[in-house]
Amino acid sequence: MHTTVGVIGGGPAGLLLARLLHNAGIDCVLLESRDRAYVEGRQRAGILEQGTVDVLRECGAGARMDREGLVHDGIELRFDRRSHRIDFPSLTSGRRVMVYAQTEVVKDLIAAQLDNGGPLLFEAKAEAVTGVDTGQPMIHFTHEGRDQTLTCDYVVGCDGFHGVARSAVPGGVLTTYERTYPYSWLGILADVPPSCDELVYAHSSRGFALHSMRSPTVSRLYLQVPNGTDPADWADEHVWDELDARFAVDSSWKLERGPITAKAVLPMRSFVAEPMRYGRLFLAGDAAHIVPPTGAKGLNLAVSDVVVLANAFAHLRTTGSAELLDAFSATCLRRVWRAEHFSYFMTTTLHTDPRQSPFDTRLQISQLDRITTSTAAAAELAENYVGPPIV
Amino acid sequence: MHTTVGVIGGGPAGLLLARLLHNAGIDCVLLESRDRAYVEGRQRAGILEQGTVDVLRECGAGARMDREGLVHDGIELRFDRRSHRIDFPSLTSGRRVMVYAQTEVVKDLIAAQLDNGGPLLFEAKAEAVTGVDTGQPMIHFTHEGRDQTLTCDYVVGCDGFHGVARSAVPGGVLTTYERTYPYSWLGILADVPPSCDELVYAHSSRGFALHSMRSPTVSRLYLQVPNGTDPADWADEHVWDELDARFAVDSSWKLERGPITAKAVLPMRSFVAEPMRYGRLFLAGDAAHIVPPTGAKGLNLAVSDVVVLANAFAHLRTTGSAELLDAFSATCLRRVWRAEHFSYFMTTTLHTDPRQSPFDTRLQISQLDRITTSTAAAAELAENYVGPPIV
Repeated sequence: MHTTVGVIGGGPAGLLLARLLHNAGIDCVLLESRDRAYVEGRQRAGILEQGTVDVLRECGAGARMDREGLVHDGIELRFDRRSHRIDFPSLTSGRRVMVYAQTEVVKDLIAAQLDNGGPLLFEAKAEAVTGVDTGQPMIHFTHEGRDQTLTCDYVVGCDGFHGVARSAVPGGVLTTYERTYPYSWLGILADVPPSCDELVYAHSSRGFALHSMRSPTVSRLYLQVPNGTDPADWADEHVWDELDARFAVDSSWKLERGPITAKAVLPMRSFVAEPMRYGRLFLAGDAAHIVPPTGAKGLNLAVSDVVVLANAFAHLRTTGSAELLDAFSATCLRRVWRAEHFSYFMTTTLHTDPRQSPFDTRLQISQLDRITTSTAAAAELAENYVGPPIV
Repeated sequence: MHTTVGVIGGGPAGLLLARLLHNAGIDCVLLESRDRAYVEGRQRAGILEQGTVDVLRECGAGARMDREGLVHDGIELRFDRRSHRIDFPSLTSGRRVMVYAQTEVVKDLIAAQLDNGGPLLFEAKAEAVTGVDTGQPMIHFTHEGRDQTLTCDYVVGCDGFHGVARSAVPGGVLTTYERTYPYSWLGILADVPPSCDELVYAHSSRGFALHSMRSPTVSRLYLQVPNGTDPADWADEHVWDELDARFAVDSSWKLERGPITAKAVLPMRSFVAEPMRYGRLFLAGDAAHIVPPTGAKGLNLAVSDVVVLANAFAHLRTTGSAELLDAFSATCLRRVWRAEHFSYFMTTTLHTDPRQSPFDTRLQISQLDRITTSTAAAAELAENYVGPPIV
C-alpha cells in the first residue's frame, strides 16, 4: 500500500490533517490503533480558540459545533474573596472562544472522513516507522491480524506523547524540554446544568478549582489534588464540598450538584521536542509537545500544527516548492513556546505549590489583582487565551 | 525635646518626608546616625518614576534634577541575539522616567532642609523607640556624646532594613514575607560616557547584564554574579570582557571602556513587613520592604510611602480626621505588592538561575519575545516600569 502522506493517530490532529489534505486533493491514509467507539469516547479538552473554530468551519466539519457549541465571551477569575470577569471581545478586537468538547470534534471529523474522505483504518496499530531519512519512509503496522506496511512520501506522527513516531527519530537529533508540576487535577463530569454561564478559574488557599461545562446539561469541574491521588479516595460528597469551599466568594454564588458520571485524575506536564521534523517525518500535537491543561491550549496547538502542515503540503503540490515544509518546525515552535509559557503562567499563578512560601502566595494575589485592574494586563491574558491567528 | 513627627533616618524617605511635613506646616525632627558627607556619598539607585519626579518638583527640590537629570523615554531589551526597544510614552499615555542618582536627590533634599526646614541632626543615632502604643512615643538617641530623648506625637521609621524602628514593634504583630535569590549584582561606576542613550537590560546564557548611567560622563554597569562574590576577584579587564560578552548582539554595538571608580557586590532580596503601622509608629521605605534592584522600584516605593504619609498627617492637621493615617498601611501595601511582583518578574525573567532547566530558559525567551511583539505585553511592562500615579 502506498500513499502521499501517511498519518499515524486518529485524534483531532490526525483527523483534521486528513480532512485538510483531502480538501487539498492530497492522498492520505490515516491509521488509528483503537476502535471507533473508543476514540469517540475519550474525554479530553473542551475549549476551542477562535482560530480553531474558524478552521473547523472552513474544512466543513463545523456544522454541529455551530449548532451545539457554546460561544464564550469571557472567563471569571476568583481570588482573595473577590470575583472578576475578563471580557474577551472588548480586549481582543472581537475574538472569543467556543466550548465544544474535543470528543465531539473527533466524532464530527470521523463522520466527515468516513463520508467522503480517504482511508481511515481503525485498530491499525503502528509498530514502527522506518526510512524517514530516505525518499520513501514506511509505516509498519498491524491490522486485521496481519503485519502490513504503508509506504509514503511523508509520514506525520499525530500519535501523542507515547506514540511510536517520535521514537523513529535517531537519538541525539531531538532536544527535549520538560517540566513536571507538584499537583494534578481531579476532573469530574456531572449531569447537572453549569452553575454559571462561563468558566470560573478559582485561586484559593485550599488549591485551584475550575468550573467548566460540556453542554447546557453537563458540568465539567476540576480540583487541584496531590500527585498520586486515587480518584476512588474522593467520595462524591467530598468532591462537591471541596468545590464549594474553593469557589466560595460571595453569597450570590451557588454550586449546583448532580450525579457524577466520570471521575479521573489528570497529571500536569510541560514537554517540547525540537525540531518537529526529521527527514520525511513530521510530528504534530502531543507527539511533539504537551502543556498543562490550565490554559486550554493542547487541542488548539494540535490544530495549528496540522493547519501549518497541510498548507505546506498544498504549497508543495501547487508550486513544487518545499519552502513551507522546511519552515514547518520553526513556524510551529514559536506558537508552541508562546502556549507553553502561557500554560505555565496560568498554572503557576492559579495553583498552590505545596512548597510555596507566603511570599509566593502574595505574588500570585498581586498578579491576579493586576489582571483585574489593568487593561494591559487583562489584554495580555485575553489575547493569549483566545489565541493568535493560526496563519 | 518634643516634636509632632519624629523621623528616624536621613535617606531619601526621611528627607522627603521632612520636606513635605515642613511644607505642610507640621513640626518634625529628623535624626540621621551618620554624618552629612557619608550620607551624601552613598551610591544607590538612579531611576526616578514619573510620579517621583513630580513630587520632587512640587516640594521644591527638583531644580537641579531638571537641569542635570536625563529624561528617558524607553529601555532596550536584549535576548536571543536580538535587541528591542520599549517606548514608554507611546505605551503609557506620555509617561517617562528620569535618570538622576539617589545620592543627588539626597544632596538636594539636605540642602533644602538646611536652608529652610526643621531640625536635621546628623550623627544622631537612634538606639530605641518606646511607647509607640501610648499617646507619646519616644525616640532614644545619642548625639554629641549624650543620651537624649525626643518625645513625639508620631514616630516614622525611615531607617532601612536594619533600622531600629521596626524592632520597636512587639513580636507577633508583624507578618514578614521574604525571598532571596541565588545571584547578586556586581555593580561598577566608570568614568566613561554611556555607550548608548538608554538603559539596556540583557538576558544572556552567561547571566544578566545592565547598562545604565549616572550622567553624560559616568556609566553605571551591572553583572549578575554568584552570591558571595568578592569584587576583588574581578579585575577591571575581566569586568569589561564579561560585559562585552553579555551585551553582544550585533556589530552596531560597542561598549565603551574607561576607568572603573567603584566596584561593589549588591545582594538581591524581596522583603515585606505587614502592617506598616503599629500604634503611633509608622514604617516607610526599606524599613518596611525591600525589592531586588532589577525593576528600579526601591527608591520610588520609599517616595510613594512618605507622600501617602505626609498627606495623611496634613489631613489630620486640617480636618482632625485620622482616616488617612488609618488607611496608610493598606494604601501603601497595594503599591508595595505590585512593585514586589514586578521586581520579581523582571528579576526572574532576565537572570539565569543556576538551578534553572533548559525549559525554564526557553520560557524566559518566550516571555521576552512576547514583550517585543505584543502591544499588551509591552504596555504591561512599561506601565509597571514608569509606575502608577502616587495618589
